[in-house]
Amino acid sequence: MNLQISVIGSGDEATPEAIRLAEQVGRELGKRGATVVTGGLQGVMEAASRGAKEAGGRTIGILPGSDPSEANDYVDIPICTGIGYARNVIVVRSGRAVIAVTGAFGTLSEIAHALGDKIPVIGLNTWSISRNGQRDESMILAKDPVDAVEKALEAARKRNQASSVTGGKR
Amino acid sequence: MNLQISVIGSGDEATPEAIRLAEQVGRELGKRGATVVTGGLQGVMEAASRGAKEAGGRTIGILPGSDPSEANDYVDIPICTGIGYARNVIVVRSGRAVIAVTGAFGTLSEIAHALGDKIPVIGLNTWSISRNGQRDESMILAKDPVDAVEKALEAARKRNQASSVTGGKR
Amino acid sequence: MNLQISVIGSGDEATPEAIRLAEQVGRELGKRGATVVTGGLQGVMEAASRGAKEAGGRTIGILPGSDPSEANDYVDIPICTGIGYARNVIVVRSGRAVIAVTGAFGTLSEIAHALGDKIPVIGLNTWSISRNGQRDESMILAKDPVDAVEKALEAARKRNQASSVTGGKR
Amino acid sequence: MNLQISVIGSGDEATPEAIRLAEQVGRELGKRGATVVTGGLQGVMEAASRGAKEAGGRTIGILPGSDPSEANDYVDIPICTGIGYARNVIVVRSGRAVIAVTGAFGTLSEIAHALGDKIPVIGLNTWSISRNGQRDESMILAKDPVDAVEKALEAARKRNQASSVTGGKR
Repeated sequence: MNLQISVIGSGDEATPEAIRLAEQVGRELGKRGATVVTGGLQGVMEAASRGAKEAGGRTIGILPGSDPSEANDYVDIPICTGIGYARNVIVVRSGRAVIAVTGAFGTLSEIAHALGDKIPVIGLNTWSISRNGQRDESMILAKDPVDAVEKALEAARKRNQASSVTGGKR
Repeated sequence: MNLQISVIGSGDEATPEAIRLAEQVGRELGKRGATVVTGGLQGVMEAASRGAKEAGGRTIGILPGSDPSEANDYVDIPICTGIGYARNVIVVRSGRAVIAVTGAFGTLSEIAHALGDKIPVIGLNTWSISRNGQRDESMILAKDPVDAVEKALEAARKRNQASSVTGGKR
Repeated sequence: MNLQISVIGSGDEATPEAIRLAEQVGRELGKRGATVVTGGLQGVMEAASRGAKEAGGRTIGILPGSDPSEANDYVDIPICTGIGYARNVIVVRSGRAVIAVTGAFGTLSEIAHALGDKIPVIGLNTWSISRNGQRDESMILAKDPVDAVEKALEAARKRNQASSVTGGKR
Repeated sequence: MNLQISVIGSGDEATPEAIRLAEQVGRELGKRGATVVTGGLQGVMEAASRGAKEAGGRTIGILPGSDPSEANDYVDIPICTGIGYARNVIVVRSGRAVIAVTGAFGTLSEIAHALGDKIPVIGLNTWSISRNGQRDESMILAKDPVDAVEKALEAARKRNQASSVTGGKR
């Protein structure tokens, strides 16, 4: 099994609590053999990648710029997009599920993008959204990092089965 | 004065109510000499463009594909991006303010993107968002299309003044 | 008639000769009522836009960044992509034909992109290309700015007719 | 050592000769422990990935669409951009050097893009380019797949050394 799971959240403004949660998410993903996909920079992205590497996992960093040395030290595979923050859509699309850890407006934009593309999103202390006064329940809520990772892997496997029925390969 | 104001909202799944509101938004923008920027397709995008044209305004359609004939009939200036839904970020960035009319996840993604870029967003019957159980108040709420347009133009003018102080030209 | 014609070429490193040619190209396009599409910055982009404005034409600048004040003074309609040099593909796709004036590698990349998309390219003192030792003749060569503009408008009109036969609107 | 080397060339219209060369290029890269980056589809992209996998190497496919099942069977790590052919710039930027195998206009566009970004390009039976009647010598020519791979790895290592002197990490 080599599932790619995206972890999204704030960069430089990440709180210590967000860093701690993201590192645990990364570690639990790494232990279970998943590949961690992030935006490759600091904050939540670095913490999730560090956690994954400590557990022997593999990490992909989808960078806004053109220089692989922008990536944090825990990225194995730098992807240099050069398209700036529009690279966020590539981060969410390259995971079979997305775990959102806290986060600011950029993270909300990625969550909405993933939900619109029917990519499962697991939320850990992150945004909640309402339409016409009605809370939207599309996001799966997790109570802690282990719960988030288990729900993400379950959703990713279901999605793979669904797409293999309709002819997809992964 | 030639301010560009972006109008965002659903395409094919737009409700009759959303269409009616968007057309009024477009008409009020056109009357006041603003240029309407949309994603160039159907639903809210078409209604806002039609309203603007009826009032003698100018319209820009930033298309997901490569063929200008994808644009609805009320687009004066088709921009063919060929980058799919990643073109949404270009729609919000090309306005000095954004009016969100109802909308689904794509619209929420654009709202979040705009707020993250500090582009003023005026909401008309659209999403509301909360972080850690606290309602986020970054979006300006409007009670009807005229109110939305007046608030958008005011926010756009303030933003222009702020950027002219710091050296911008527009 | 409101045809959009893209003009491509170097920015800061444009030679005085390139600037002179681009300004004439812009002026001839403006005189004939065409809208000039460029990357919105300096050099050939600025010269073509200035020429068009002097002749009463309309200009669109498709910018790499997010700030409309990056645009040169002759851009009427700034489009803020925020995707960096990947915006080059949007410049060529948004014209019904492309005029390449001299240029460096970025221009060659845009020429190749346009030819691959079957967008007509008119070359004025620009690159020539060979495959397996055989000169490729896909680019239309022009001997001066007036010739370039006439050939571009002719190619753009033919393309419009072809697409209207197959159902396109423009 | 884990250098990423991009291999570019035609997809569906690749000739049998191009397929044969690309597979050898992939195999020689795989033997030497390099990671092969391609656009993830058929033709040259598939052949280079197949060669790399046969030699025990690792492969990345940077796809135009949003569905990882678009990738050929030899892609280990699918990156789903959803930005269409604009993803070509990400393919070249994500390699420390680029090997171009034959190819049509898309390949020429990528070659020019890489040269403009000062990414080393090694050409194998591909385009040649001239400016003002003068052949441009920026591309490094290779006489066969082994020669191409050795030149690519040498150029990639030199580039890494240069960037480590100026502070880059990779």
